[in-house]
Amino acid sequence: MSMKKVAIIMGSDSDLPVVEKAASVLEDYGVPFEMHVYSAHRTPNEAKEFASSARGNGFGAIIAAAGKAAHLAGAIAASTTLPVIGLPIKSSTLSGMDALFSTVQMPSGIPVGTVALDGAENAALLSVQILAVNDETLAEKLDKAREQMRKKILEKDKAVSERFNR
Amino acid sequence: MSMKKVAIIMGSDSDLPVVEKAASVLEDYGVPFEMHVYSAHRTPNEAKEFASSARGNGFGAIIAAAGKAAHLAGAIAASTTLPVIGLPIKSSTLSGMDALFSTVQMPSGIPVGTVALDGAENAALLSVQILAVNDETLAEKLDKAREQMRKKILEKDKAVSERFNR
Amino acid sequence: MSMKKVAIIMGSDSDLPVVEKAASVLEDYGVPFEMHVYSAHRTPNEAKEFASSARGNGFGAIIAAAGKAAHLAGAIAASTTLPVIGLPIKSSTLSGMDALFSTVQMPSGIPVGTVALDGAENAALLSVQILAVNDETLAEKLDKAREQMRKKILEKDKAVSERFNR
Amino acid sequence: MSMKKVAIIMGSDSDLPVVEKAASVLEDYGVPFEMHVYSAHRTPNEAKEFASSARGNGFGAIIAAAGKAAHLAGAIAASTTLPVIGLPIKSSTLSGMDALFSTVQMPSGIPVGTVALDGAENAALLSVQILAVNDETLAEKLDKAREQMRKKILEKDKAVSERFNR
Amino acid sequence: MSMKKVAIIMGSDSDLPVVEKAASVLEDYGVPFEMHVYSAHRTPNEAKEFASSARGNGFGAIIAAAGKAAHLAGAIAASTTLPVIGLPIKSSTLSGMDALFSTVQMPSGIPVGTVALDGAENAALLSVQILAVNDETLAEKLDKAREQMRKKILEKDKAVSERFNR
Amino acid sequence: MSMKKVAIIMGSDSDLPVVEKAASVLEDYGVPFEMHVYSAHRTPNEAKEFASSARGNGFGAIIAAAGKAAHLAGAIAASTTLPVIGLPIKSSTLSGMDALFSTVQMPSGIPVGTVALDGAENAALLSVQILAVNDETLAEKLDKAREQMRKKILEKDKAVSERFNR
Amino acid sequence: MSMKKVAIIMGSDSDLPVVEKAASVLEDYGVPFEMHVYSAHRTPNEAKEFASSARGNGFGAIIAAAGKAAHLAGAIAASTTLPVIGLPIKSSTLSGMDALFSTVQMPSGIPVGTVALDGAENAALLSVQILAVNDETLAEKLDKAREQMRKKILEKDKAVSERFNR
Amino acid sequence: MSMKKVAIIMGSDSDLPVVEKAASVLEDYGVPFEMHVYSAHRTPNEAKEFASSARGNGFGAIIAAAGKAAHLAGAIAASTTLPVIGLPIKSSTLSGMDALFSTVQMPSGIPVGTVALDGAENAALLSVQILAVNDETLAEKLDKAREQMRKKILEKDKAVSERFNR
Repeated sequence: MSMKKVAIIMGSDSDLPVVEKAASVLEDYGVPFEMHVYSAHRTPNEAKEFASSARGNGFGAIIAAAGKAAHLAGAIAASTTLPVIGLPIKSSTLSGMDALFSTVQMPSGIPVGTVALDGAENAALLSVQILAVNDETLAEKLDKAREQMRKKILEKDKAVSERFNR
Repeated sequence: MSMKKVAIIMGSDSDLPVVEKAASVLEDYGVPFEMHVYSAHRTPNEAKEFASSARGNGFGAIIAAAGKAAHLAGAIAASTTLPVIGLPIKSSTLSGMDALFSTVQMPSGIPVGTVALDGAENAALLSVQILAVNDETLAEKLDKAREQMRKKILEKDKAVSERFNR
Repeated sequence: MSMKKVAIIMGSDSDLPVVEKAASVLEDYGVPFEMHVYSAHRTPNEAKEFASSARGNGFGAIIAAAGKAAHLAGAIAASTTLPVIGLPIKSSTLSGMDALFSTVQMPSGIPVGTVALDGAENAALLSVQILAVNDETLAEKLDKAREQMRKKILEKDKAVSERFNR
Repeated sequence: MSMKKVAIIMGSDSDLPVVEKAASVLEDYGVPFEMHVYSAHRTPNEAKEFASSARGNGFGAIIAAAGKAAHLAGAIAASTTLPVIGLPIKSSTLSGMDALFSTVQMPSGIPVGTVALDGAENAALLSVQILAVNDETLAEKLDKAREQMRKKILEKDKAVSERFNR
Repeated sequence: MSMKKVAIIMGSDSDLPVVEKAASVLEDYGVPFEMHVYSAHRTPNEAKEFASSARGNGFGAIIAAAGKAAHLAGAIAASTTLPVIGLPIKSSTLSGMDALFSTVQMPSGIPVGTVALDGAENAALLSVQILAVNDETLAEKLDKAREQMRKKILEKDKAVSERFNR
Repeated sequence: MSMKKVAIIMGSDSDLPVVEKAASVLEDYGVPFEMHVYSAHRTPNEAKEFASSARGNGFGAIIAAAGKAAHLAGAIAASTTLPVIGLPIKSSTLSGMDALFSTVQMPSGIPVGTVALDGAENAALLSVQILAVNDETLAEKLDKAREQMRKKILEKDKAVSERFNR
Repeated sequence: MSMKKVAIIMGSDSDLPVVEKAASVLEDYGVPFEMHVYSAHRTPNEAKEFASSARGNGFGAIIAAAGKAAHLAGAIAASTTLPVIGLPIKSSTLSGMDALFSTVQMPSGIPVGTVALDGAENAALLSVQILAVNDETLAEKLDKAREQMRKKILEKDKAVSERFNR
Repeated sequence: MSMKKVAIIMGSDSDLPVVEKAASVLEDYGVPFEMHVYSAHRTPNEAKEFASSARGNGFGAIIAAAGKAAHLAGAIAASTTLPVIGLPIKSSTLSGMDALFSTVQMPSGIPVGTVALDGAENAALLSVQILAVNDETLAEKLDKAREQMRKKILEKDKAVSERFNR
């Protein structure tokens, strides 16, 4: 059985500087992915068609990134029963509250799992974790990355301790 | 030329106690209307079909009421170029900020004209004002209602003045 | 019957860099417009006189842009029954929440249709949509613009897909 | 020279249960006052006329109470150079933030001195303090009231101390 | 291969009235689950032990529900690479913003997929969707439930239309 | 009777770039003033002594400017029955909400009249308006300034109209 | 050396229903305490005198509880170098944000350690922890209470698990 | 008896520019300290081990600094009964509200004393105040620093007064 793919969809290519970090994480894990620009409002049909055929096309999770009245994740989630990961993007007003609330406050029946504002790496990691539920090799990679992250922090701890403690 | 209709769409029939005030206003003005329950997330196709055929079906404005991650107005606006009036509904968390931000913070290209939280009467009045741009009879009715509203306030002023002033 | 005009009123000429995008949209659609600086607080009489004579002077919609305790749209709406579009402008404090709440939370009887913070293009588009309710030529232009917008997104989708998908 | 009057204006008689506490304070101080219901949006002319003739009619300060997009204090302030005290009223959505921001965030040139949400007593007290700037008798009454307030707290302190300290 | 289990962990049994709706959804889908009360702060070791052994014990996803400074989902996520679903619970202050921000704003490396405040049904549905990535029977059940939800809305639409349209 | 003075007190000299605009306004009106740096927390005694002797020292109003947990206006108001004008200063976190709420939400009995965040000009103008209640010359100056402000806006209106209207 | 006392000060006796839980915790730990009603605004001198003599009078920590523009903790902290614990109290507007921001956002030099809104138990516990820094008996009591709290949660876990797990 | 140490723990070394001000204050007071980088999520075990052995290792207080969903202070507090001082760090979204709410809104039983956003100096000062409860020499240093701070403000007051008063 080949690995499921992850879709990364953004509502506008102005979100790319944030969103491309998600692509980078997926590459690190060797997870196949597709990246698209579909807007919930400006190309609703394309967004819907992508979502409704995603499971059949071999996807296992969909990341949807959008700012302001961020409807993209919800619109995608309305047309698939795959897990949808909402990635709210901060824009120039309201400190990101608009994107966060619009993404996370979904009504009963249509869940979206939302990550932090501008949290593209975590959106990607969460999609890897979803694929890893039934993929032990991927699960081991995740565990190794945690261990590396831990070591990196401990090195920083050592550097800070040596510089400051007296 | 017969009068255009107004559509009132709500995302859930639990919004009815707020939304039915809009129907009441339209009845007062003799404006024909249809009232529907279509959810941006649970019946996206029906919402979209309604919106995309609304102009052809004789509608002149659409009111869309929803709470929480209130995508309905935006979803409707994505499928029509009729004026869409967003009516955010307060729910049990976040004091209504989620519905307001989700409705009003639309991206460029797909406007929604948003009224106050739970402001069903104003949503209806705004739709009447839109129809009245080319309908002098309706415009006169609006002016008369303003005058009546003014008189009502002045009566209340009189009552309060008489009771309190010394 | 000649086309109705749109009025764009701003509370301060410091709002011009944001607001002039509305003028640009109206020019694209060939909709005649007037642009004014009237303050709800500093020139209340001029604002009121403009509003109360706007319908008679051939206007079909009024856009009112203001920041902070943004009363302009409400003050205009108090003196006309034309559709008034509120355009809240973000200033240096409170992330724009003050302008948004002051514009959108209007009391019953005096509606303002509010667009996103700094959303000048959508304010203009909404005014065009209002004029297009009874103007099929304008409605067709709106539909064409939607189609162009859609194509532009799909081109961006293609560019992003080609760059990132593997 | 007779004492100046204080005006208490509310945007809606639904604000009366909060606002009447201001009347009560003014009565306690023997300050003459008038109480009115004028809406910035529904009776803008009456509000404006009252404000612009207030100084000539013997008023020394104006309290303006309103909720939601609370424009009343600003509208009054636009038509007088008397001190205007804004009294924001909490309504059913947004925890009162809308009324507070709409009242306090006034643009340069048109000040409003805003008190706490639903703070009718303080609105009245501030108006008394303004009249007391040139009225030593009133200033003495204010000082006495402070002293009484202090004693009341100290009595409560005594009661609490006796009950709880060990 | 037997079906993975879902864990539902709440920080306090006072969250039970909200959280038990998640159990109900999992029962409807025939998904095996365990429900626990572990606090990130009051039983950090038990929470950690549960999380770190969850994959080995046959779990496929963990729902973590907490209010206020809602650290539970993050604490669980720190000790597992299984997908963790954060369920923020509204408490008596701050309208739920504290629980939402504390759950969703996770730092890079430790993702939590957050659902709406008090959104227990969606937390459960999201866990089912995660298990369904590799389980076609479950995926079909999800699709059927969507279809039923759609029909229910359309029935409500019919009821509302019949009552209000004229 | 000589004119009362206005006191401008700031909690930190880092507030000076904002606060000195208040001094500038008072100079324009020929109102005598004193400017001080007293902190509610770092020099509470000096702040208190200044406030409690202010009326006797010929002051008619006190402006108190502070940021963050902005207690200065409240602390001043606690030691005088002169009108106190709160001027909240935006700092680097929370968009100014902390300073605004800390200044305006005063408990019953101790009023503070609060102006907009960083609204130093309005703080000064409000103090002039308070002095003008019993000073016709000052009241006339205020009226003239309003008229000049009005003309300035109308000139800007003319410039914008000429540039944009077609 | 006898044990230091803890002071619990509240700005108004209306805070008593929340604050008395702090007294209850201190009684459980056998920590001597005094409870007072002193207002930062209505009895500033008494608050200040208490604070400035608190160390000399045998106190080791001061809890200060207040709502709205909650200046009490800051005012106390300005007059002592004892640790001051701020306890913000939610009132009827702004969801408690005003009290929280007013208590916690203290300027450099005058720290207040703030606990959760209405978090009286934690305010008391923090004061016990401060006294326990040099009191091993008290530190042991704190450890035991933690262990009991842990057991109570585990009992609840058992009850919930037995009821729900299948 | 030798002086207790203070621990300064930060969740990420990106917080160092803010946090190192705390080290600087502790050096000024001659209080021994250790500085560490431990993440509640990325090195939960190290954070926990540090906290649970801190009292035995001679620490008297722990400062925990973190941003976003700032769980560090709560995680530390869960594993020690020493006083824990939460230092919320503002990051790029939500104006710091996420870090503040995540740090301060702790559940009953596990207190964290929270200082202002980015308030590293106050975090350090509060830890010194805690150690000074039983250390008269340290208490005297704190009093002297207050006196110096007072003098500094009064010098600034003199400079500002001389420049502006007329």
